[in-house]
Amino acid sequence: MDIKYTPISTVGEFGLVEKFASLAARYQNPNVISSIGDDAAVLRPTPGKLTVVTTDVMVQNVHYDASYTSMKHLGQKAAAVNLSDIAAMSALPTAAFVSLGIHSNISLEMIEEFYDALTAEFGKHGCSVAGGDTSASPVGFFASVTVSGEVEPERLAVRSGAKVGDVVCVSGDLGRAHAGLKILQREKSRYVEAGQPADFAPDFEGFDTALQKHLIPDVRITLSREISEKIRLHSLIDVSDGLISDMMHICVSSGVAAELSEEFIPLDPITRRVAEEFKEDPLSYALFGGEDYELLFTIAEEDFPKLYSLQGNVRAIGRIMEGEARVKIKRVNGENEEYSGYPSYQHFAKRNSL
Amino acid sequence: MDIKYTPISTVGEFGLVEKFASLAARYQNPNVISSIGDDAAVLRPTPGKLTVVTTDVMVQNVHYDASYTSMKHLGQKAAAVNLSDIAAMSALPTAAFVSLGIHSNISLEMIEEFYDALTAEFGKHGCSVAGGDTSASPVGFFASVTVSGEVEPERLAVRSGAKVGDVVCVSGDLGRAHAGLKILQREKSRYVEAGQPADFAPDFEGFDTALQKHLIPDVRITLSREISEKIRLHSLIDVSDGLISDMMHICVSSGVAAELSEEFIPLDPITRRVAEEFKEDPLSYALFGGEDYELLFTIAEEDFPKLYSLQGNVRAIGRIMEGEARVKIKRVNGENEEYSGYPSYQHFAKRNSL
Repeated sequence: MDIKYTPISTVGEFGLVEKFASLAARYQNPNVISSIGDDAAVLRPTPGKLTVVTTDVMVQNVHYDASYTSMKHLGQKAAAVNLSDIAAMSALPTAAFVSLGIHSNISLEMIEEFYDALTAEFGKHGCSVAGGDTSASPVGFFASVTVSGEVEPERLAVRSGAKVGDVVCVSGDLGRAHAGLKILQREKSRYVEAGQPADFAPDFEGFDTALQKHLIPDVRITLSREISEKIRLHSLIDVSDGLISDMMHICVSSGVAAELSEEFIPLDPITRRVAEEFKEDPLSYALFGGEDYELLFTIAEEDFPKLYSLQGNVRAIGRIMEGEARVKIKRVNGENEEYSGYPSYQHFAKRNSL
Repeated sequence: MDIKYTPISTVGEFGLVEKFASLAARYQNPNVISSIGDDAAVLRPTPGKLTVVTTDVMVQNVHYDASYTSMKHLGQKAAAVNLSDIAAMSALPTAAFVSLGIHSNISLEMIEEFYDALTAEFGKHGCSVAGGDTSASPVGFFASVTVSGEVEPERLAVRSGAKVGDVVCVSGDLGRAHAGLKILQREKSRYVEAGQPADFAPDFEGFDTALQKHLIPDVRITLSREISEKIRLHSLIDVSDGLISDMMHICVSSGVAAELSEEFIPLDPITRRVAEEFKEDPLSYALFGGEDYELLFTIAEEDFPKLYSLQGNVRAIGRIMEGEARVKIKRVNGENEEYSGYPSYQHFAKRNSL
């Protein structure tokens, strides 16, 4: 095996762009007429469809910890978080645009790993990487990714269409990404407290599915399209900030309230096990954890049976109610909790040390 | 006058997004159906038109020096450099997506100044700011901007269509942005060498048009559209890396060579004056300086007279020739220079200290 270390300075910006172009060329969306290599990419929109565009930025030490995030995982995730926003419109992705800020201590091999995984994740969902920009960065690494997609006007799903009486549904399970993060942070603390020994072995035994959910999330593009093929989605969002925040987004945009039942909110056994180890409430991982990238949506009650065929991947967890935007959680112990704000992680909150 | 200082932490991410939404709402492109406030923006493409997409990133201390770049100028420029790429396809801009990385030492007022100028510059050209993302940044500030536009297929202008015998044309004048940068850097050196006194007065007298060209470039959207309305552009690029580099891009993409004459390359008197002060060759500012954001294009010889009406804003500076990609400069002293590579600024070149 020929393992090399290539400083980024030896290839230059144009050399890097050539590398990117060859990695990106492996996956081609037919609507992309020309991509990397001109002042702008050229796309031919499908007649009658709407275009959706989303953008997300990932910054080292803000969005991820380089000590336990491989560049491959980071590349996959940088694609996935954007694809999840496309899924949240019930659209299909067409083209991605990737701008990177790269400090000189990052090797060409690291950047290639990142770009390889990123283009592969986009390609898996039929999306070309059609452009971007690269820059030096004074510290670390950042990736700013913009994705365009297409959707039939009648299948477009937004946040603002929730109706009183709607059933609130969620895909997959919630809180597992946060459980994975807790384990990663615990092992990092143990490593640091032990004086960062060379032979440190993190204890990840049995937590694979939680780590995986946090580091390399699956995106619900296919499921979102399956749902909008069967029924009319009244509202849809992806769960990126935690169930409460994302439910609140729908409530605020739609001018309604939501009432959710703990007993129906899907938690994986591994999420319960992690919460138990930390002596925390497992439901709080689902409500405030974030980064699950599942679908949260509301539909007419009579449409719910049409989703039975989706193999248990979708669960009803509550109802849309009349009233001011707020989210009520009916706990299994009979108590109710009510939220009328956004409780989750905020970048510029005072508790954020950055 | 009520001057305030508001730490960015006091508004939070959602507060910031609300500010951005209200500034962006002042300018609406009719093709943008919904913008900030959902998982993705929704655009309705004009039937029969192609979509073009470009993206550019601006990083503090890499692309600009915060000591002499106001946040207003920076906002205008972050929009302009992207609009220039849209002009370089002969397209009209539709929607912009703006992601920002913001260190906590940057005030809300600074960010508002930036966003105000950015949205105004986009709005001036009929373009909505339709989405984005905001993040903390470990140091300084960065802006990653993506812009989509539209163009009739028959007016699309790319780099790869230059034909042997074409006339090479350029808009405006070249090298003036670099002249402005030289003056800014000189005055900054004087300030630093003087021990950064509080009463330091930079000597910008008489250099306004050069500083302006560097700090707040005009973009050639209107001119580019005027040209493609009159004639068929064989190839088109914007001059962002200097005349040699950008001419090389056309030559490499088109598989041709170019022969340019010094006597026709437009230099402003201020550019000559600055070069004289620094005892440098004024032509080198045009050839290698970059950031002029003028149009460089090639057309059939018989079409050139159709551009006479553009009020001297367009000049013929040379010819497309057969042969390997290279750029020949015929100097007025009778000597020739020939370039077959990209000589200008490269982000990851070894000489770059970052």
